[in-house]
Amino acid sequence: MSCILMNTPVSIVQGASRGLGLQFCKTLLNQNKELLVIATCRNPDKAHELKVLESQNTSRLQIHQVDVRNESHINALSEFVKEKYGKVDLLINSAGMLHPSGKGETSLKDVSFEGLRSTFEVNTIGPLIMAKYFGPLLMKGGSTFGLRSEDTKVRHSAVLVNMSAKVGSISDNGLGGWYSYRMSKAALNMATKNLSIELGRGKNRVICVALHPGTVDTDLSRPYHKNVPKLFTTEYSVECLLNVINSLTVSDTGKYLTYDRSELQF
Amino acid sequence: MSCILMNTPVSIVQGASRGLGLQFCKTLLNQNKELLVIATCRNPDKAHELKVLESQNTSRLQIHQVDVRNESHINALSEFVKEKYGKVDLLINSAGMLHPSGKGETSLKDVSFEGLRSTFEVNTIGPLIMAKYFGPLLMKGGSTFGLRSEDTKVRHSAVLVNMSAKVGSISDNGLGGWYSYRMSKAALNMATKNLSIELGRGKNRVICVALHPGTVDTDLSRPYHKNVPKLFTTEYSVECLLNVINSLTVSDTGKYLTYDRSELQF
Repeated sequence: MSCILMNTPVSIVQGASRGLGLQFCKTLLNQNKELLVIATCRNPDKAHELKVLESQNTSRLQIHQVDVRNESHINALSEFVKEKYGKVDLLINSAGMLHPSGKGETSLKDVSFEGLRSTFEVNTIGPLIMAKYFGPLLMKGGSTFGLRSEDTKVRHSAVLVNMSAKVGSISDNGLGGWYSYRMSKAALNMATKNLSIELGRGKNRVICVALHPGTVDTDLSRPYHKNVPKLFTTEYSVECLLNVINSLTVSDTGKYLTYDRSELQF
Repeated sequence: MSCILMNTPVSIVQGASRGLGLQFCKTLLNQNKELLVIATCRNPDKAHELKVLESQNTSRLQIHQVDVRNESHINALSEFVKEKYGKVDLLINSAGMLHPSGKGETSLKDVSFEGLRSTFEVNTIGPLIMAKYFGPLLMKGGSTFGLRSEDTKVRHSAVLVNMSAKVGSISDNGLGGWYSYRMSKAALNMATKNLSIELGRGKNRVICVALHPGTVDTDLSRPYHKNVPKLFTTEYSVECLLNVINSLTVSDTGKYLTYDRSELQF
């Protein structure tokens, strides 16, 4: 039994109650009938759509309560996964917010210490603490996602995705505003770069990337939809992002890529 | 009297109890005999060297207690400066830490939620909250620092400096580690870019830059001195940085510059 479990591909989607995280669960379950999806969210009781998905996929989707601001929640889940599966093949850090108020700051008068701190906690620190606890399990993952290297000495073990955003590019920033969100994503891009180095040593290398999903029809972007020329459905965005994920090689680690696989500058 | 005060150049050095902040106070007082230096630190009672400097410059150096994690401290100082001087000509955000433990994380096992949060609070959020409250006063500053533009329609009013570091460059990061420090400085670079946009509109433009001081002989870098081929004294670094500050024009706003005025990529 333990041997069978070891061969099951294991993915974790952090922030799965809605938006892109929920869609990642749906599309992953559809695309790979062998795959186990471990879905985390802060409040499973309120994650109605995710619970429906679980009831339709009882053996393949598990919901676990994780508030990324609580390191002990993340530690507990990592112990469970280590014990039961011994590895992770894909980790997607998807939870994110624009600002606790639901609207990005348009100018300095909207900036507050608390707003900045909360946004960093959820968008930046949480994903890195996930990587801290799941890094060792990703090192033991297989190459279910991404392409194998032609160089047989370099084998990639798993894929770690941090959901970033184009507005997290400092060099591309021409409009300003959205202080908390932009700063949290720039810091997350640095975390991704650091992770690509630390988890990219040795023979088994975890491919770590920061991805921009486009502007997607989710709660996060809802207040801004009227100004968006090209608004993606979550289905379309996640399909594109999984195409990117499946095309990754070891040489892509540390990159900041868009849904159409073009590379962004930091 | 109020008119005389309005003509006094006013600088604020945030994080002035030691290291680069203390040296900025000393060198600024030496270089400009008209200049008023408002020095802030968390705990003036323990800032012995700064207090000696104050006793030698009673009319030109003022020490104010500001913990940048406390928005009401910053607000109170800005009200005082607004009332008394009506403007600021130079703001230097200098306070910074490597990590609460005094050592940067060498790997993920050293990373903690609390360590990341504290480092963001001091290195990133504090400087932005300073900019929030002093931005309007910088807009009313004069061009004591930096060079006037040849285009007379574009006048720069004041200079805002965020002390960054080369290890805050995501594209330049080849070694990894130092998670909290690197991430906090990348986010501070984004804040600087945003500030350059918001405070760069209209006729009176505040020049906002992120500066890399080199590796300097301070408490922050002390644990790493033996690996540094070129360790600067605080005197030398600050002299270089003030040369850069005095050479800035409106077209430099938003840049990430080193002590020798070369431009870094984000």
